[in-house]
Amino acid sequence: MHVLILGGDGYLGWPSAMYFSARGHQVTVVDNYLRRNNCQTLDVGMLYPVPTLMERAKIWHELTGHEIKVVIGDLAEPQVMRSLFDGSVKYNWCINPAFTGIPETVVHYAEQPSAPYSLIDYAHADLTIVNNLRVTNNLMFAVRDFSRDTHIIKLGTMGEYGTPNIDIEEGWIEIEHKGRKGKFLFPRAAGSIYHTTKVMDTDLMWFGVRMWDLRVTDLMQGPVYGIETDEAAIDPRLSTIFNYDEVFGTIVNRFIVQAVVDYPLTVYGKGGQTRGYLNIKDTLQCVHHAEMSPAAKGELRIFNQIMETFSANQLAEKVQKVGQSLGYDVKVNHLDNPRKEAEEHYYNPSYQGLIDLGVKPHYLTDEVVAGMFKVVDRYKDSIRKDVIFKGIKW
Amino acid sequence: MHVLILGGDGYLGWPSAMYFSARGHQVTVVDNYLRRNNCQTLDVGMLYPVPTLMERAKIWHELTGHEIKVVIGDLAEPQVMRSLFDGSVKYNWCINPAFTGIPETVVHYAEQPSAPYSLIDYAHADLTIVNNLRVTNNLMFAVRDFSRDTHIIKLGTMGEYGTPNIDIEEGWIEIEHKGRKGKFLFPRAAGSIYHTTKVMDTDLMWFGVRMWDLRVTDLMQGPVYGIETDEAAIDPRLSTIFNYDEVFGTIVNRFIVQAVVDYPLTVYGKGGQTRGYLNIKDTLQCVHHAEMSPAAKGELRIFNQIMETFSANQLAEKVQKVGQSLGYDVKVNHLDNPRKEAEEHYYNPSYQGLIDLGVKPHYLTDEVVAGMFKVVDRYKDSIRKDVIFKGIKW
Repeated sequence: MHVLILGGDGYLGWPSAMYFSARGHQVTVVDNYLRRNNCQTLDVGMLYPVPTLMERAKIWHELTGHEIKVVIGDLAEPQVMRSLFDGSVKYNWCINPAFTGIPETVVHYAEQPSAPYSLIDYAHADLTIVNNLRVTNNLMFAVRDFSRDTHIIKLGTMGEYGTPNIDIEEGWIEIEHKGRKGKFLFPRAAGSIYHTTKVMDTDLMWFGVRMWDLRVTDLMQGPVYGIETDEAAIDPRLSTIFNYDEVFGTIVNRFIVQAVVDYPLTVYGKGGQTRGYLNIKDTLQCVHHAEMSPAAKGELRIFNQIMETFSANQLAEKVQKVGQSLGYDVKVNHLDNPRKEAEEHYYNPSYQGLIDLGVKPHYLTDEVVAGMFKVVDRYKDSIRKDVIFKGIKW
Repeated sequence: MHVLILGGDGYLGWPSAMYFSARGHQVTVVDNYLRRNNCQTLDVGMLYPVPTLMERAKIWHELTGHEIKVVIGDLAEPQVMRSLFDGSVKYNWCINPAFTGIPETVVHYAEQPSAPYSLIDYAHADLTIVNNLRVTNNLMFAVRDFSRDTHIIKLGTMGEYGTPNIDIEEGWIEIEHKGRKGKFLFPRAAGSIYHTTKVMDTDLMWFGVRMWDLRVTDLMQGPVYGIETDEAAIDPRLSTIFNYDEVFGTIVNRFIVQAVVDYPLTVYGKGGQTRGYLNIKDTLQCVHHAEMSPAAKGELRIFNQIMETFSANQLAEKVQKVGQSLGYDVKVNHLDNPRKEAEEHYYNPSYQGLIDLGVKPHYLTDEVVAGMFKVVDRYKDSIRKDVIFKGIKW
């Protein structure tokens, strides 16, 4: 099976590429370094340096014998996307330069993934909207035009739903209204421009599914935490990109870095904001299980990709408790909330679908938190406190 | 009151500009001729030539003494949009070059408005998505950054809802689910890329309303028909752009042109497709009434802007009957449907809100149809049969 990973350089993209490659899949990754470039431009730092995508693929090949073909290109350009389906692609790194063929599965991570980034100002909102929508549209039309049987696995976000006052189902809801019934996409109310582009992606794919019988799995993922995956454990140069700043770092990752350098954990407002979380190892499992059991033709299959829920306060308490047991002096600081969001709210999402497919959850246990402390502590001296909080408001 | 009309050269934009100007408003229009350029590129013709936007404003001023300031520019460029709020705008035509000031109301028509155009291929889909979303985002941020009290009147479409199996409410629905209740945007399932961009526009504005307490009225409009408005009646050079081709012409307008030149009316498939319609005169009334009673701060107010519903068959029969009574030989041809859509379906939309605001509907009476025949017949010799049907499929 040939798996094409769009956004293959990112926090989830590169670990996913290795995961599929280690399981015998042919893998092609595409990236234009948008994430790295944005990190450089904002000067937010990373926990440790990582090699380029081509270097990573070379190291992976040297250590495992597996080939991950690399394309450096902007998927917002239609011809870059279409070249991956019509065979005109030129690989920037590979062992065998022959076209691998049309992918059976495409994993679409190629988006600007940060909510605060999308709200720096109108220009960053514009970049987020245009980049994310163009890539998704290019993908949809490439599959329509060249290979309607290809399974698209698109990363959505639980943030598409917001925090409604009703139970959150997995993507769909049956509505009874004035004596008649219909099945509809679950209502969405996203909390950032970035999250809104994910709603738009879903709308676009839902159109493609209805019109052209595409096969689409939409994974409504919660914030991911974690550093290590089994494939990266082979060599530290294979580690994923790890941000700990307010813009690109996710909350658990940020809190642990903050705890290690005695920077009080930044809880926004009352801290009752509850979300669903998952370990990066489970992202890989979920995507793999979705790949093994593809959506049917004409199906937009939606899963809520989370393994457990926590409030910001619960996460802070957990990191504080584990940190203190390890000898760190961990404080918690309730900041004025730079975001407009409910700080106390009802939250009851379903998330059984991926478990039913066979995913075995890793939970955020004290041991897992302690393991993250251990890794982060290695890089303690290079952590920049000045990038941790900038207070991007919306 | 200062009304800024984005897309002021279009089928609805220019008549709206005159309508507000005639009622004593200060009016600024902005357009980049996207519609006209697209018509030229596709070579689809217009019923009659119309002067440029600057010439139209000049003629309007000569005949009425009113000034409509003109800006020729691309609102997808942030600086063009922002110049209309920060005073740095340069008018391409005006009497008084001083900045009119921040508009109290913005009417947003500045979008690629054709469903078939959006589905010619991936590049036309891309243009539609990028243009429409960028303009809406630029508008949202300009209002956020310079004038949160400005009332945005955005043209949506009834096509956002699709043809659900439940009654269509005016934008919102209360859902009771597992014993809990919430109010949500009415479910959407658009039938083209163009219509999908309108769903995305709504999502974007809904975000802006929740985050920054913007005032937004979203007018879910049905297909508009008609040529003449009271202001254009002063001089034929003030007439609106009128397309009769499959790409840019709306169904009633197309049918009447087809009837006049003995081209069988092109009903797609079974013809049971039912939609809500309105006279161009009612678009002007609706927008004006929305302007007079603005949405509250932090309100996304949605109206369904239609006055009556018809199936495609009913429209064909009406045009045929009136045409025959006027001596035309009108045939109806059921073509294989180039679109993927339900040809028989439930359709029961609410549309009381604008009537409650004071709009007095014009209906599609035999007299109205006969009046359109009379105008179209004047241009009979210049109608190009070759552009009427091209069969853009999706």
